[in-house]
Amino acid sequence: MWGGRFAEGPSAIMREINASIPFDKALWRQDIAASKAHVAMLAACDIVSDDDAGTIIGGLETIASEYDTDGVPEDWDLEDIHMTTEARLAELVGPVAGRLHTARSRNDQVATDFRLWVRDTCDAMIDGLKGLQRALVSRAGEHAASIMPGFTHLQTAQPVTMGHHLMAYYEMAARDISRLEDARRRLNQCPLGSAALAGTGFPIDREMTAQALGFDVPTANSLDSVSDRDFALDFLGAASQCALHLSRLAEEMVIWASQPFGFIRMPDTLSTGSSIMPQKKNPDAAELVRGHTGRIVGCQMSLMMTMKGLPLAYSKDMQDDKPPVFEAAHLLQLCIAAMTGMVDGAEFRTGRMREAAELGYATATDLADWLVREADIPFREAHHITGAAVKLAESRGQSLEALSLDDLTAIDARIDERVYRALSVEASVAARNSHGGTAPDEVNKRVAEARKALGMKE
Amino acid sequence: MWGGRFAEGPSAIMREINASIPFDKALWRQDIAASKAHVAMLAACDIVSDDDAGTIIGGLETIASEYDTDGVPEDWDLEDIHMTTEARLAELVGPVAGRLHTARSRNDQVATDFRLWVRDTCDAMIDGLKGLQRALVSRAGEHAASIMPGFTHLQTAQPVTMGHHLMAYYEMAARDISRLEDARRRLNQCPLGSAALAGTGFPIDREMTAQALGFDVPTANSLDSVSDRDFALDFLGAASQCALHLSRLAEEMVIWASQPFGFIRMPDTLSTGSSIMPQKKNPDAAELVRGHTGRIVGCQMSLMMTMKGLPLAYSKDMQDDKPPVFEAAHLLQLCIAAMTGMVDGAEFRTGRMREAAELGYATATDLADWLVREADIPFREAHHITGAAVKLAESRGQSLEALSLDDLTAIDARIDERVYRALSVEASVAARNSHGGTAPDEVNKRVAEARKALGMKE
Amino acid sequence: MWGGRFAEGPSAIMREINASIPFDKALWRQDIAASKAHVAMLAACDIVSDDDAGTIIGGLETIASEYDTDGVPEDWDLEDIHMTTEARLAELVGPVAGRLHTARSRNDQVATDFRLWVRDTCDAMIDGLKGLQRALVSRAGEHAASIMPGFTHLQTAQPVTMGHHLMAYYEMAARDISRLEDARRRLNQCPLGSAALAGTGFPIDREMTAQALGFDVPTANSLDSVSDRDFALDFLGAASQCALHLSRLAEEMVIWASQPFGFIRMPDTLSTGSSIMPQKKNPDAAELVRGHTGRIVGCQMSLMMTMKGLPLAYSKDMQDDKPPVFEAAHLLQLCIAAMTGMVDGAEFRTGRMREAAELGYATATDLADWLVREADIPFREAHHITGAAVKLAESRGQSLEALSLDDLTAIDARIDERVYRALSVEASVAARNSHGGTAPDEVNKRVAEARKALGMKE
Amino acid sequence: MWGGRFAEGPSAIMREINASIPFDKALWRQDIAASKAHVAMLAACDIVSDDDAGTIIGGLETIASEYDTDGVPEDWDLEDIHMTTEARLAELVGPVAGRLHTARSRNDQVATDFRLWVRDTCDAMIDGLKGLQRALVSRAGEHAASIMPGFTHLQTAQPVTMGHHLMAYYEMAARDISRLEDARRRLNQCPLGSAALAGTGFPIDREMTAQALGFDVPTANSLDSVSDRDFALDFLGAASQCALHLSRLAEEMVIWASQPFGFIRMPDTLSTGSSIMPQKKNPDAAELVRGHTGRIVGCQMSLMMTMKGLPLAYSKDMQDDKPPVFEAAHLLQLCIAAMTGMVDGAEFRTGRMREAAELGYATATDLADWLVREADIPFREAHHITGAAVKLAESRGQSLEALSLDDLTAIDARIDERVYRALSVEASVAARNSHGGTAPDEVNKRVAEARKALGMKE
Repeated sequence: MWGGRFAEGPSAIMREINASIPFDKALWRQDIAASKAHVAMLAACDIVSDDDAGTIIGGLETIASEYDTDGVPEDWDLEDIHMTTEARLAELVGPVAGRLHTARSRNDQVATDFRLWVRDTCDAMIDGLKGLQRALVSRAGEHAASIMPGFTHLQTAQPVTMGHHLMAYYEMAARDISRLEDARRRLNQCPLGSAALAGTGFPIDREMTAQALGFDVPTANSLDSVSDRDFALDFLGAASQCALHLSRLAEEMVIWASQPFGFIRMPDTLSTGSSIMPQKKNPDAAELVRGHTGRIVGCQMSLMMTMKGLPLAYSKDMQDDKPPVFEAAHLLQLCIAAMTGMVDGAEFRTGRMREAAELGYATATDLADWLVREADIPFREAHHITGAAVKLAESRGQSLEALSLDDLTAIDARIDERVYRALSVEASVAARNSHGGTAPDEVNKRVAEARKALGMKE
Repeated sequence: MWGGRFAEGPSAIMREINASIPFDKALWRQDIAASKAHVAMLAACDIVSDDDAGTIIGGLETIASEYDTDGVPEDWDLEDIHMTTEARLAELVGPVAGRLHTARSRNDQVATDFRLWVRDTCDAMIDGLKGLQRALVSRAGEHAASIMPGFTHLQTAQPVTMGHHLMAYYEMAARDISRLEDARRRLNQCPLGSAALAGTGFPIDREMTAQALGFDVPTANSLDSVSDRDFALDFLGAASQCALHLSRLAEEMVIWASQPFGFIRMPDTLSTGSSIMPQKKNPDAAELVRGHTGRIVGCQMSLMMTMKGLPLAYSKDMQDDKPPVFEAAHLLQLCIAAMTGMVDGAEFRTGRMREAAELGYATATDLADWLVREADIPFREAHHITGAAVKLAESRGQSLEALSLDDLTAIDARIDERVYRALSVEASVAARNSHGGTAPDEVNKRVAEARKALGMKE
Repeated sequence: MWGGRFAEGPSAIMREINASIPFDKALWRQDIAASKAHVAMLAACDIVSDDDAGTIIGGLETIASEYDTDGVPEDWDLEDIHMTTEARLAELVGPVAGRLHTARSRNDQVATDFRLWVRDTCDAMIDGLKGLQRALVSRAGEHAASIMPGFTHLQTAQPVTMGHHLMAYYEMAARDISRLEDARRRLNQCPLGSAALAGTGFPIDREMTAQALGFDVPTANSLDSVSDRDFALDFLGAASQCALHLSRLAEEMVIWASQPFGFIRMPDTLSTGSSIMPQKKNPDAAELVRGHTGRIVGCQMSLMMTMKGLPLAYSKDMQDDKPPVFEAAHLLQLCIAAMTGMVDGAEFRTGRMREAAELGYATATDLADWLVREADIPFREAHHITGAAVKLAESRGQSLEALSLDDLTAIDARIDERVYRALSVEASVAARNSHGGTAPDEVNKRVAEARKALGMKE
Repeated sequence: MWGGRFAEGPSAIMREINASIPFDKALWRQDIAASKAHVAMLAACDIVSDDDAGTIIGGLETIASEYDTDGVPEDWDLEDIHMTTEARLAELVGPVAGRLHTARSRNDQVATDFRLWVRDTCDAMIDGLKGLQRALVSRAGEHAASIMPGFTHLQTAQPVTMGHHLMAYYEMAARDISRLEDARRRLNQCPLGSAALAGTGFPIDREMTAQALGFDVPTANSLDSVSDRDFALDFLGAASQCALHLSRLAEEMVIWASQPFGFIRMPDTLSTGSSIMPQKKNPDAAELVRGHTGRIVGCQMSLMMTMKGLPLAYSKDMQDDKPPVFEAAHLLQLCIAAMTGMVDGAEFRTGRMREAAELGYATATDLADWLVREADIPFREAHHITGAAVKLAESRGQSLEALSLDDLTAIDARIDERVYRALSVEASVAARNSHGGTAPDEVNKRVAEARKALGMKE
């Protein structure tokens, strides 16, 4: 390719460190689509003849069908997917193939291909997340009234419902989708025609290629177009945050599946056993989702460090943009799919959940709130009185409800028998009916809205 | 505060590791604003009396003016800004202060305060970036026709203009602004009223507090509301990418200011000298901008790792959300301001830039393009012919323009004397007038659009 | 300081971004020690007179006592601790102060000061970790025979003892110490005398200053000496890995302290309550240790990114080395201290632990091993037989021990009544007496070795 | 494998997320070596018969030769290299294969295999780094007296020699080697026999397997043995720091190869051309080394985040330990090899380097030092006088040497004509002969020491 320039061929180590074909072959569909759009535009602008353009497009279609059938050949001497395809084109159609690279460079070509790939991936991830949302909403609807202990600091705090808990992840997924949509919108500008770095003197029509490839507009600055990898970083950032959300649910599943908790049974299809301990049923899928978070964030870190301090325009360091993006996309897809499977398939052991909710004085806040409401005591004082009641109950190994009225009035004379109505976990949950609260009615309302938004049956 | 519960006081190490007041006092304005909105709502909903609400609001205003004058006192026993303010309120207005914390918890309180702080910070950063854009656009207008070598791989590639180069950073800043706007939009939901984790049984009006604090809506799920730090991560992600952009321009400035390049002189106000080498004038501000990138990205990394695998709802780990956000915001503000100063103040040494553009065979592509256009040679063949011309010129230590027509026709007979018109750097730059290209006319067009968008004089 | 060179003074933003005195004042003791060693050497080498050296040393001692009493003044115009001290010296002793900076530069000065600081910090962390080891060993000795479920995948796997579990962290701390010792050894070379970057023409004696400051040798290359921050990265790397270990124990403590587990009660001194839920006793210290891990690793990440791609020798980016090191050291110290307090003070609820060990078929492996040992069945087959037994017991809600001999022989005829001796958790634990196994005798042996190594009473 | 336990088979997504065989097949040699050592020990301890052991060892050797010839088959149902090999063993030798897994678990097996792999990799990297050191030392010897500008802040600071500069990287590589040696020493303890987590009741001899596999001792705690990945993190930490060093030299090479610097010509074998610009010769290998730094550090980040907060003992998250280690090792190997090739092959353009050294008033410090030495002026005052001289020279566009004695004495009367001897770059370099300084004699001394240490010819 640059035979006119070099006296020596690249050495073995250079071939290996330089070749991107082992990974960038993943871009072949995008590369061919962009080449077809480019040559069609060259013809429309009279830069190549219609005949030559037709020949080239025919050749590209042949190559596409070859790749589809046999895969992309990996010849390190051809470096990358662009040269691999162009070399094959030359074999197929002869020297006219050389007209394809008019008014473009690999710098704008790869920027275009990679944007197209990331755009497709954003779409795929959004689809996957909507599937996860559907699973969450379905199970939340089933368990809108299934009581479990709500935790803060992993200490029993107040009773909540499993439906409410699952809908928290619905909200996270909604933000993840919104972040991917933002990334998609921001990347949807076409760099093709920026050439190596400075634009071109050929009378090209950048609007035409942009439109043909589904971009909103052509990019506005050719130097930026070939230097920019924000679109990859935007995707990686969205992937990291999504993985962090999944890691939290995965952590909960691992804890919930433990024998002392026993809140869920994971489906056999998403568990494994042990090579040594015959009784084991391990929540491997949840652990792998949690573990993959490190790798996805590592991918983001990787590209951020690679991009740091690079002068304009293209530097070869930027070839290290693709492996982390490809890896993160693959891992995230697995994580979303595995999590959807786990949410779909988990058996919620409502009996165990409810029992646990009754431990740990989860309704102490309800006692404090009752004192505020019914006895008009300032909250801080009510909090203090309740603390004394919990202390007494704890010292006796009793629940709050098991304290006698005498016990309670000895602590504060303003307490009367109506208080017991506030101390059951059902009452506690039903009471928290503020907007976004855990009361089953509130959860059902939010589930219904979500089902509608997702186009699910009502 | 939880005196009714504990027999022992927290030990010294616990006081130190637990206290967040040394850093979260930065939230005092937001904390007081949210408390005022909360108590006004409690009164409107008849949960506290108007008198009590008035007393509390008066007390909060007194505290705000104390903090404004004397700073926030740092008493580790009061843990955080919320308890510090509430304790002072109790001193000022007595037990009625205890009514303020009705129907809320520190968990929703801090989530609200911190969102407000991040929202303000997004706005400030957007302002800063628009200032940087104005500086870039001004200097780009001055240098729309100042020729410099465009680099890829830091090798002379094709001539470009400094105006075009600066406008590449205008585009990056535009994406940074767009990313901050997305972050701002996504965070603008009010968690207040989510209470500890489950919502509340008091008949509160979450729409009212949301509106009072400038939020679009209340958040939809109370568990998510107190567990979510996406808004902090969105800001950190936007900050990291912005810092990466600045690091690239900083790197270029350091290189441009070196003696062998000599493309710019940094203003004395943004340089320092050496304690040992009297002749030194160092581009410290640029280096610090580049160095701070590591710290800003480190802040993002920090919070991502902290959030990984946290079960819902609030865990104390999340107290580690604020130091990285505060640090990143402070550093980014400095970086944007310093970079704006450098862009404003840099002296572009146009003579040196132009000389450098003439070295390195920067117009070789123009020769290849000429062969395609004028002799209808496929680009790949034209590329090869040009390679031979460069090789000849290089072996003689000459420029391309200095090759005789005989030399050129010996390489390829289709070359004629019109070619020389394509080989000057001015001709090269002027020719690249495709959309987004480096031609001065194109640059001026884009500068004019940008000036208009920024509301600058035309 | 470079008044002869610049026409203008540094602007406000430059003063702020450039000044390191707000953080590098932490180096004052090291800076004064290194200056004293330097001037004593200059006198010994006849580069300054003994009188001048005496005057300078006297002045430095005065300054040290001022700093000790009143703190280091923060004047941004004096940039850093070096200029702050030198300026004060000039006030105290006049122009002779100017002789101190002979044959050195701030570049080697800061490299020396910072190495000394990191060396002291490594020593302090090693001390802290030995304190943690002592706490672990004491509690492990108490609980060498306290049975708990050993988990893999957080599923009950096999019974282990709490002593064995705690000793796992003793091993991790031992590796942390070893890593810090390696870091200390590697950094213990003295850069002083490398001057700005190239060494000096003054006839200095670098061995003398190295020895005076407790370094093993002077560094071997002046360019490397002022460019190197490996010592800071080695410390940060050791700190990150130590924090990761602590995060694991912290996670376990959070889980163990939850109501469903109930394996430990955290001391009141290291817990906090809730502003809304009166019954809460939160394991805040453990959560903060876990959360701080993110920040410590973020610090390491920060400096790695800052150092990436910096040309030799000193660049101002390297001023960003100190904030992350100072922050990580401070946080790690808190984490080690808090963890030591938690290990010391945790109440292990041995009854709850033992009960949990009996759930989850923890001795299934013992049944499989018994089949191998007593019936000479290949392990894989024994594993399969045991799986069937677990399945039967689980379907009946029984423990393995509760299966009748008829049940067991129906599954495999080779089982006989001796098997029951293998199925108790005590038998299981006692049997695992291979080197490093969980048998109480093994644990006690290892505890005794550790006590001896730590110089504890036997 | 756990067929006795589960009613359903793993679903498709589980197969994919769970299978580690696609990457852990890289461990096959280590896995077979460890299995052979294990079964030999089982026989020696009379846990399996000598005949069975012989059969198993024979089978393992057959498998090794199959893998060597045909590669490791990738059947996702067999999950990992351990099950793949064991399943093949069962095909080859029948049920006796089931005896191999006696007294071990996959948890200790993979910990052993992976340690062996990392140990081999440390050795390979140390070898590679010694090769790089040899290349550096050779070129440093050639250029011990080749003058170039020494930079701080990428500003001309003082003249240095290229030999001195290259030897700075020799020192960095020495620290990298020392770090890998520390990692190797720390990991060299054998976890085999720790079984699943608790040790085993079989009377095994852990010393024997440790010795057979070249470990110093068996590990001391079975829980730690299967939970620990410090050895992987130690390697990744060493790899990151090594990559950071290489990134600095790579950055310098990119800058040095630029047209304005022109200090080096990269060998054609390690450069590439452009698809559009025929004159380009890009330092791709250097850029890729610099870019790979991001990926290597990303790998470290990845595993740190994955390990954060994992409870003991083994969790499936830890399966994500291998991809980042394998990737980092592969990339680092390429980087070291490519950098060795570049150091070996770079052409240092000594004329350009020397010319550049004469620009930028690089000998200003020599003037200041002369004033201290010859006129006994305190350094700070000498620095100020020199600043004035530089300012005058700069205003005239002259070098310092070109100032007349009248000019100089007008600035300070104590200057006399001897000063000119100090102002040449040769004099400057030769003068800096302090230990570790840039004087050619010092460089040659250090080169000779290094050659000896590396066993190179003298």
